[in-house]
Amino acid sequence: MSEQPKFAVIGGGSWATAIAKMLCVNLSEIAWYMRNTDAIAHIKTHRHNPNYLSSVEFDVRKLKLTSDINEAVAYADYIIFAIPSAFLSGELSRLTESLKSKVIFSAIKGIVPETFLIVGEHFHKEFGIPYDNIGVITGPCHAEEVALERLSYLTIACGDEKKAEIMGDNLAGNYIKVKISDDIVGTEYAAMLKNIYAIAAGIAHGLGYGDNFQSVLMSNGIREMKKFIRKVHKMKRNINDSAYLGDLLVTGYSVFSRNRMFGNMIGKGYTVKSAMMEMSMVAEGYYAVKSAYKLNEEYGAKTPIIDAVYNILYEGKEARKVFKKLTDKLD
Amino acid sequence: MSEQPKFAVIGGGSWATAIAKMLCVNLSEIAWYMRNTDAIAHIKTHRHNPNYLSSVEFDVRKLKLTSDINEAVAYADYIIFAIPSAFLSGELSRLTESLKSKVIFSAIKGIVPETFLIVGEHFHKEFGIPYDNIGVITGPCHAEEVALERLSYLTIACGDEKKAEIMGDNLAGNYIKVKISDDIVGTEYAAMLKNIYAIAAGIAHGLGYGDNFQSVLMSNGIREMKKFIRKVHKMKRNINDSAYLGDLLVTGYSVFSRNRMFGNMIGKGYTVKSAMMEMSMVAEGYYAVKSAYKLNEEYGAKTPIIDAVYNILYEGKEARKVFKKLTDKLD
Repeated sequence: MSEQPKFAVIGGGSWATAIAKMLCVNLSEIAWYMRNTDAIAHIKTHRHNPNYLSSVEFDVRKLKLTSDINEAVAYADYIIFAIPSAFLSGELSRLTESLKSKVIFSAIKGIVPETFLIVGEHFHKEFGIPYDNIGVITGPCHAEEVALERLSYLTIACGDEKKAEIMGDNLAGNYIKVKISDDIVGTEYAAMLKNIYAIAAGIAHGLGYGDNFQSVLMSNGIREMKKFIRKVHKMKRNINDSAYLGDLLVTGYSVFSRNRMFGNMIGKGYTVKSAMMEMSMVAEGYYAVKSAYKLNEEYGAKTPIIDAVYNILYEGKEARKVFKKLTDKLD
Repeated sequence: MSEQPKFAVIGGGSWATAIAKMLCVNLSEIAWYMRNTDAIAHIKTHRHNPNYLSSVEFDVRKLKLTSDINEAVAYADYIIFAIPSAFLSGELSRLTESLKSKVIFSAIKGIVPETFLIVGEHFHKEFGIPYDNIGVITGPCHAEEVALERLSYLTIACGDEKKAEIMGDNLAGNYIKVKISDDIVGTEYAAMLKNIYAIAAGIAHGLGYGDNFQSVLMSNGIREMKKFIRKVHKMKRNINDSAYLGDLLVTGYSVFSRNRMFGNMIGKGYTVKSAMMEMSMVAEGYYAVKSAYKLNEEYGAKTPIIDAVYNILYEGKEARKVFKKLTDKLD
């Protein structure tokens, strides 16, 4: 690996665009892969991603844009995956370039639906990448606020702390502060679990529960998250750090969160199918809750909120009744 | 004390009105003291408090309304104080009835400005009430949502758990769930400190910081609160319980919070004096931060957020500069 490693961003959505923006502050060149060739052409001509964070202007001389994922992987030492978890397997199946010797960072906040693994585990188990070469980029961070250059704090975790620091140094800037963590498993699980609590917050809102209940839900949510993550990977961590509690809050209290919006529709009486069609995208928490619920059959943590969301989304139980029961389990 | 103790509510504001409403579900009679004789006359005739939660209808046959605090105190075994902390000393100075043998519950979320004590400590030190006869009623609970009968969770703490249970039983109902706690000091400090963090949240918003930062501020806020309360009274408590974290969130994320509103005006450039005049009331957090700051000179907990709010409100430092420095201390 050269002195200054090369970076590639995988994905053309809002979070990928925000990460590309951050990297361009610090680097003279990055590779940026996205499937959509029209979007690539648009960025090259107009310097803006037409579909996401379209206000962000790029210095296109810095961008090696490509619709060939192998080109981006071949170029880079550090590869940041920032695509919906549902698309990850499909993208990886196109790989002919080896990921060996690459450092893989996940900016995906979800579960790989085919393997029910968090992204780091997926790369480790399916591609044999050692955990020293696997990292996680987590918030609390709405991509939209990065576009507006509003102060945001990222947490970067990696099995190898030095690599986390290299990634952090290349993301940090005037409006981006970075914290390094050694909790690669916990931060990624938190990023995944928070989407479930955001769905729960949306369901509660859709059912007509108010702010008093919302705060009780979040207070129970972080306690539940702590128990769950502790079962998955026990280590010394402060669950109230920004990467866990902060990330939960920024999602759970955001009216723009896709997960919260999805939950809100469920609470208002949409079926799962119709809510998904209406949103024309899948909320990450939809996969996350199935995985968390199944995993927890083994772990046995007490997770009434995850159970409630699972019962509603996967067992067709009535949201109103499930939440009525849930309220007796919270305190 | 009789089998079924008698209850009095002291105060005519929104939280007092909400508590009167809750008690009336369970009791056939309560005493309700408020200074405003016009409001009393209005309630007697129209069954609504004209000034606060005016949608709530009372069965006036249950209400012993009085503008004489001694009448209410003489009547009751359990006395709930729900007035702004700034008025407490004035009201207590009118007392000729003894508080001995009374059980005092504070629903005041603040500091007594004259003594810089939380309300429980004030009653203990100034009136010699034993802690077994002192209790606290805390949220997370916006009075407005009680008016709407939206599900809310209260935490009731008392030196004598049995008295907490009696109070809880008489407040609980279809839309009010109650939790008993033995942390009378911690819950009251939390209720006081959260107003400081709400002011901080308001200042941040007024200065143009976004949701990403807000979540980092709250995540740091609860960690700071934990450290502070631990110094004041060390015991086993889960700071993520609803009475601490939930209460912080319902206030910090509420656009209706007076403290957040006050902070927002400071962030937008109002002076403290002009913000107070504009709001025509004093935010509880204004007193709380002075007291917390002074107390902490002794305790020495690391409280950068409290310090920042104090510097802005009491030392005339510029909010923008203070917060710029604060952002480097958060993570």
